[in-house]
Amino acid sequence: MKLTESAQGVYSIAVTPFLPDGRLDIASVDRMTDFYVGAGATGLTILGIMGEAPKLSEEESLAVTKAVVNRTKVPVIVGVSSPGFAAMRSLAVGAMERGAAGVMIAPTPNLRTDDQIVNYYAQAIEAIGTDIPFVIQDYPLTLSVVMTPKVIRQIVVNHPSCVMLKHEDWPGLEKITTMRGFEKDGSMKKISILTGNGGLFLDFEMDRGVDGAMTGYAFPEMLADVVRLSKAGERDKAHDIFDAHLPLVRYEQQQGVGLAVRKYVLQKRGAIASDAQRKPGSSLSKTAKDEIDYLLARLARHDPRARV
Amino acid sequence: MKLTESAQGVYSIAVTPFLPDGRLDIASVDRMTDFYVGAGATGLTILGIMGEAPKLSEEESLAVTKAVVNRTKVPVIVGVSSPGFAAMRSLAVGAMERGAAGVMIAPTPNLRTDDQIVNYYAQAIEAIGTDIPFVIQDYPLTLSVVMTPKVIRQIVVNHPSCVMLKHEDWPGLEKITTMRGFEKDGSMKKISILTGNGGLFLDFEMDRGVDGAMTGYAFPEMLADVVRLSKAGERDKAHDIFDAHLPLVRYEQQQGVGLAVRKYVLQKRGAIASDAQRKPGSSLSKTAKDEIDYLLARLARHDPRARV
Amino acid sequence: MKLTESAQGVYSIAVTPFLPDGRLDIASVDRMTDFYVGAGATGLTILGIMGEAPKLSEEESLAVTKAVVNRTKVPVIVGVSSPGFAAMRSLAVGAMERGAAGVMIAPTPNLRTDDQIVNYYAQAIEAIGTDIPFVIQDYPLTLSVVMTPKVIRQIVVNHPSCVMLKHEDWPGLEKITTMRGFEKDGSMKKISILTGNGGLFLDFEMDRGVDGAMTGYAFPEMLADVVRLSKAGERDKAHDIFDAHLPLVRYEQQQGVGLAVRKYVLQKRGAIASDAQRKPGSSLSKTAKDEIDYLLARLARHDPRARV
Amino acid sequence: MKLTESAQGVYSIAVTPFLPDGRLDIASVDRMTDFYVGAGATGLTILGIMGEAPKLSEEESLAVTKAVVNRTKVPVIVGVSSPGFAAMRSLAVGAMERGAAGVMIAPTPNLRTDDQIVNYYAQAIEAIGTDIPFVIQDYPLTLSVVMTPKVIRQIVVNHPSCVMLKHEDWPGLEKITTMRGFEKDGSMKKISILTGNGGLFLDFEMDRGVDGAMTGYAFPEMLADVVRLSKAGERDKAHDIFDAHLPLVRYEQQQGVGLAVRKYVLQKRGAIASDAQRKPGSSLSKTAKDEIDYLLARLARHDPRARV
Repeated sequence: MKLTESAQGVYSIAVTPFLPDGRLDIASVDRMTDFYVGAGATGLTILGIMGEAPKLSEEESLAVTKAVVNRTKVPVIVGVSSPGFAAMRSLAVGAMERGAAGVMIAPTPNLRTDDQIVNYYAQAIEAIGTDIPFVIQDYPLTLSVVMTPKVIRQIVVNHPSCVMLKHEDWPGLEKITTMRGFEKDGSMKKISILTGNGGLFLDFEMDRGVDGAMTGYAFPEMLADVVRLSKAGERDKAHDIFDAHLPLVRYEQQQGVGLAVRKYVLQKRGAIASDAQRKPGSSLSKTAKDEIDYLLARLARHDPRARV
Repeated sequence: MKLTESAQGVYSIAVTPFLPDGRLDIASVDRMTDFYVGAGATGLTILGIMGEAPKLSEEESLAVTKAVVNRTKVPVIVGVSSPGFAAMRSLAVGAMERGAAGVMIAPTPNLRTDDQIVNYYAQAIEAIGTDIPFVIQDYPLTLSVVMTPKVIRQIVVNHPSCVMLKHEDWPGLEKITTMRGFEKDGSMKKISILTGNGGLFLDFEMDRGVDGAMTGYAFPEMLADVVRLSKAGERDKAHDIFDAHLPLVRYEQQQGVGLAVRKYVLQKRGAIASDAQRKPGSSLSKTAKDEIDYLLARLARHDPRARV
Repeated sequence: MKLTESAQGVYSIAVTPFLPDGRLDIASVDRMTDFYVGAGATGLTILGIMGEAPKLSEEESLAVTKAVVNRTKVPVIVGVSSPGFAAMRSLAVGAMERGAAGVMIAPTPNLRTDDQIVNYYAQAIEAIGTDIPFVIQDYPLTLSVVMTPKVIRQIVVNHPSCVMLKHEDWPGLEKITTMRGFEKDGSMKKISILTGNGGLFLDFEMDRGVDGAMTGYAFPEMLADVVRLSKAGERDKAHDIFDAHLPLVRYEQQQGVGLAVRKYVLQKRGAIASDAQRKPGSSLSKTAKDEIDYLLARLARHDPRARV
Repeated sequence: MKLTESAQGVYSIAVTPFLPDGRLDIASVDRMTDFYVGAGATGLTILGIMGEAPKLSEEESLAVTKAVVNRTKVPVIVGVSSPGFAAMRSLAVGAMERGAAGVMIAPTPNLRTDDQIVNYYAQAIEAIGTDIPFVIQDYPLTLSVVMTPKVIRQIVVNHPSCVMLKHEDWPGLEKITTMRGFEKDGSMKKISILTGNGGLFLDFEMDRGVDGAMTGYAFPEMLADVVRLSKAGERDKAHDIFDAHLPLVRYEQQQGVGLAVRKYVLQKRGAIASDAQRKPGSSLSKTAKDEIDYLLARLARHDPRARV
């Protein structure tokens, strides 16, 4: 089943499970996949930045893809961003052969002008082929590439296989409104827009018209609740559950240690056997773990699912 | 009264009030100063990034300094960061002559290596003189200069007139612990550490041992509450009031539009006559204003001071 | 006399003369101005990056402007780039009042997208007014802003007061051809294009159709020779004199120490009394000075003007 | 034969030959290898930035390595820089198994502080093992990582398997002097220092004490001459041959199109069958090719080897 413009809900950015010695923990993949889908994920995105993708060999990347795809029926998007198009093509084709629904492509950090960005995607699609559905990853904070709404529209117009925008600009609320305006004025086809940034603005992003979230917050249940309640017009309730989780969302959304926080909570919740990262990884001090435990305890007063 | 290492509490980053036509609104300065101090500020920092400092002529900068200093007895820190040392010296000396308590200096964005940063501060202090108390502004997200704890320590050791760190690294909790460790192991004198980032981590920053906040969140009352409660050992209560404000703190903490949000709320609260920014400035859409109003209404359920 | 689109020849980027103690050496300004004009400069550009502009107060900047303008009849362009528009406007207006022919504006380093750059120039021209002829400085290597030919064209189209491009992209030969193509296809008016980069590509830049050089190489005579010979169709002779100077041009064109090399040679040539830079400045080791002396001695075999 | 600290002479940065359709041109590898060694190369560096390494799959990279190593007896260094350590380890081990003499490692572009850089090399060496001789690539202009001499020394001190510095800082003459000073004062063991930057400063770099060049200028003969003459104390002769080539060296040393220039000349000289680059590649306009032909014709008057 290929990814389409109608994708919506919560696409969890999956971590990659490792054993404490750094080897892939393929045994945890099933458990983790079940966890995300059980918590409300309508899709999965694997091998993204939070999936520690650059630390995996291509063989390992394909093994993870195969394991995830075999375990679930929800669409699986595979991150294929790479400094070179040979590696991008190889991974994209290999992932689709193993049953992935589509791929996600981030621009390389050196791109500056509008034309450079548009050309980069043209080259990437020439490399992977026009039949693989792809997602534009727009994440200036980490990638240091700034794409205007017009540039994104140009990429969508140029490439029919572009079906989704992972929106992770910051701030980005007006950008969502502008992109949806392009659809309304007919200058761009409707695409799926899912938002990242750890969910930090999901409450208002839904109000602005996105189709859901694509992020790895360790309680996908909350993301799913906010998407569901927002679509049902239950704005206050959506904000209530969002606000209850915000202290932890905020804590998780720290450049550099965010993944360690996320894996720590996922391990506590039983989603993965170990919170180990493959080297070089970040780790949490005793004090940081205490802070997270404190946040979880406070959260549990509002959301019983946080009792871990 | 000069700034010292014992500074604590809440140093509000003051906005600069403008009239809708772009002229300085000196008449609003008294009102604004009274507002901040009345809301619990124990000090003020003016002409920082959020003070639109680069848009002011030196004459205007000194006029604002004079007006603020004349209105209040709390210490006033003046931002003097500049691409050139002639302008930095001129503003620093002029500000101190008008009664400022100290100055704040950010590194220029091109600095890369540890030695370059240490040398930059040596040149800056040679320019302004060794008798003006100064604050190191450590704000990698915006300034793109990364200072390790060791580098900050070296600057403190080299310059007795360094009395404060404005800590705005991200993430930064472990950095606070490391800096306080330098004081404990005797390798660095005690300095005042106040934290920025819009207050987004103030709850845990207090737990980590900082002396307070230096940020411009439009409800300084909350910052003061958190500082006070934390120091009194009332951790849960500190988090309660913090969490109630977090949705708005988060909304205000958006690169690019954060100042527009802040001025909008300050105008609503009567602290300034107009939320105008001098050109080039950002502005808020109708939708964004509605979002803020919605956040304020929700906040008012927990904190009556938010009824504006 | 205001700067126009027909400007051509050699606009020397003038250094700013300082005394060894860091004070402005206004007494050297006349001598230096005479030197540049005597060496073939058809215009002067002052207070650029190589003029140590950020180290000067506005008062000093205007004093230098006045002294240079009073000494010579050739057009004088004043660099007014600034992080803030208040300072830019003040200096631009002040410089024009003192007889400058136009101003040069570089984009601020944080600009990324095409629209941001076009908007920045719109804001700058709104600040300084539409009656001051201005030069676009396109210098990605140092400013880290990349302007495509289309972006430059848009700025020219938007602002009739734009009369010149200081072309300092790298590599930039095809860019020159593209810009000249815009003039030929009628999509942009004819502007003056002068090239920088220390003259490192002037030989071929002339072949590509530029109007001359705007750079501070310490032998303006060579630049003037190459411009003259190229325009006269004496390509081989132009390259001969260029190649003779290339080892020194190359040595001078070093980021960070280039100004020290240039001032050292200018002092040797008697153009300025001291090669001092205002702090913070770079300096030359004994070995570096010996290397320059060696290059000058070798150059003197081909060009007797290098006997200094 | 493993790479050691006594390496010297000219290590040519080899291009990777492609067919016009983008496939590897393995058939050209023998011819190209013979060309470099015949022109005076004492070693070869393959799969660097100019070898279009990120465009190759690992399988292709190892195929090129095997072909080059099998063809020549001079030491072959393989570039293994990668965003991830899994890929770096895999390529490094694979290359050494095929007979490479050592590997070259560049820092990833996001590194900022001294400690981050030192730690990065510690992690890299942990990944590839301590028995593979490695080269530090110090190339701030392209990699945007600035390493001070002290940082380089720390890496050398930490890792006995570090045997060489590819010095490509800019400007870098004083850095060479500083590094050689560390050897003299006993704070760092003697390492081999070879210089890059297309040879643009090789004349003076030899004077400053480097062991030779590691760059891909299309006339390795000139590089070998300069190294040989400098070591023989024939300074004037070294500069004479250098100066004759400088116009072309300068033309080749253009970011972005430099590789196209280099491959064009190498094809003309018969070193490779086609100047094709794998996509995405740069290309030369007709005007640019004419400019190179003109430079070659002028060069041929001084150096008959340039008659191509």
